[in-house]
Amino acid sequence: MTDRTATRDALFAAAAADLGHGFDGELRIGGNYTPAVRHGDVVYVSGQIPRIGDTVAVIGRVGVEASLDEGRRAARICAMRALALLRQTLGSLDAIERILRMTVYVRSAPDFTRQSEVGDSASDVLQAVLGDAGVHSRTSIGVLQLPKGAAVEVDLIAAAIPSGTAPSRT
Amino acid sequence: MTDRTATRDALFAAAAADLGHGFDGELRIGGNYTPAVRHGDVVYVSGQIPRIGDTVAVIGRVGVEASLDEGRRAARICAMRALALLRQTLGSLDAIERILRMTVYVRSAPDFTRQSEVGDSASDVLQAVLGDAGVHSRTSIGVLQLPKGAAVEVDLIAAAIPSGTAPSRT
Amino acid sequence: MTDRTATRDALFAAAAADLGHGFDGELRIGGNYTPAVRHGDVVYVSGQIPRIGDTVAVIGRVGVEASLDEGRRAARICAMRALALLRQTLGSLDAIERILRMTVYVRSAPDFTRQSEVGDSASDVLQAVLGDAGVHSRTSIGVLQLPKGAAVEVDLIAAAIPSGTAPSRT
Repeated sequence: MTDRTATRDALFAAAAADLGHGFDGELRIGGNYTPAVRHGDVVYVSGQIPRIGDTVAVIGRVGVEASLDEGRRAARICAMRALALLRQTLGSLDAIERILRMTVYVRSAPDFTRQSEVGDSASDVLQAVLGDAGVHSRTSIGVLQLPKGAAVEVDLIAAAIPSGTAPSRT
Repeated sequence: MTDRTATRDALFAAAAADLGHGFDGELRIGGNYTPAVRHGDVVYVSGQIPRIGDTVAVIGRVGVEASLDEGRRAARICAMRALALLRQTLGSLDAIERILRMTVYVRSAPDFTRQSEVGDSASDVLQAVLGDAGVHSRTSIGVLQLPKGAAVEVDLIAAAIPSGTAPSRT
Repeated sequence: MTDRTATRDALFAAAAADLGHGFDGELRIGGNYTPAVRHGDVVYVSGQIPRIGDTVAVIGRVGVEASLDEGRRAARICAMRALALLRQTLGSLDAIERILRMTVYVRSAPDFTRQSEVGDSASDVLQAVLGDAGVHSRTSIGVLQLPKGAAVEVDLIAAAIPSGTAPSRT
């Protein structure tokens, strides 16, 4: 078996290819804050909308302008962006010990109640790329609006493997 | 006075009886994530809707389909579920050092502005069962929708008593 | 250059003067919870609405009853309240090591998508008062309602400078 760093990077690349988008390079975020802050072993990742380059890939209310499938695709893009920011912050996806908390905000039609299914597709990405380290606590809610009219927004809290610990631990 | 473990368990049982529901046994949650994640002494509990067995006990918008009192009952059920998950994760309610943060999402009628009163009933549960350890920071907001059309969703961040510390500390 | 304690306090006072309000004295919050909880070096600050004394300074939906500028003013007041609570909890603004996470809930008109611009004004306050320590991760979302009909609500997670560390560290 190859080492975990290669594995996670390869899984990330495969997930990106599956979505048809790259997530390399500097990620643009709006506003005067920072994409991620590390404190001790905990990393807080800012809310991610499904931005691809300069475009928000999925806008509208899930259940009206955006279908459930489009909402699920939006959530996957958001989760990939969050992972890309973790990689950028920590230097490697292998430095992630665990995803602790994910909050999934779904811009919803008034009668749309399948927010958990949208969240599931973001959870899928975390587990596909990180394995057991991607199993997280989660909250999914339906909101009225999101920045730029995005269909979904996702933020994360993650634990980094403590410095000085061998990167190939479980 | 009896020891605190017995006291908190008894208070939890009393709060459950008061609601007319049990919270023992495995709690079902939707989706492919986990009900709670522990990192060091901090436990992140996933968003809880007022599910009793296979049923969501209170659905609808608070202020329209659900009354304020029903919303408050929903919030109590959510808080009890979160406590049950903490007990399951830590082995005992007595292993909780402090509830750090609770977020209360209230599915709201457009003109319903009493989200804090809904949140208060969840706060009441935490304090009734945990005493001073249940005094937490809190955010209450009004959202458009929630999974399964639930009236309320609650998530928590809690501190566990560090391992190796006597369980009967303050 | 004066020491950092004086500087941050002076910057806070200047920001308060700019808003035309004081933020000294006990801050009133609704409900039976606490404005801030400290666990180790991490402080969780409860959701703040733009309350000035007994009045909510900005109510309504941003984009309808409240303009973007009024929403931005609301966000600044919320951020100032959060800083005042951190000062109250830690004894001094200089005891803040870093703002880790800010969540900005904007009560929004259905077609209002500039939540990030509202959030920016809260971010501005943190940076104006705290400098680099005020650079944070952030999530901005558009919600249907907020307690008391407030236009904005803001909560924070912050890191305190560890006890025993000289307060004048970077």
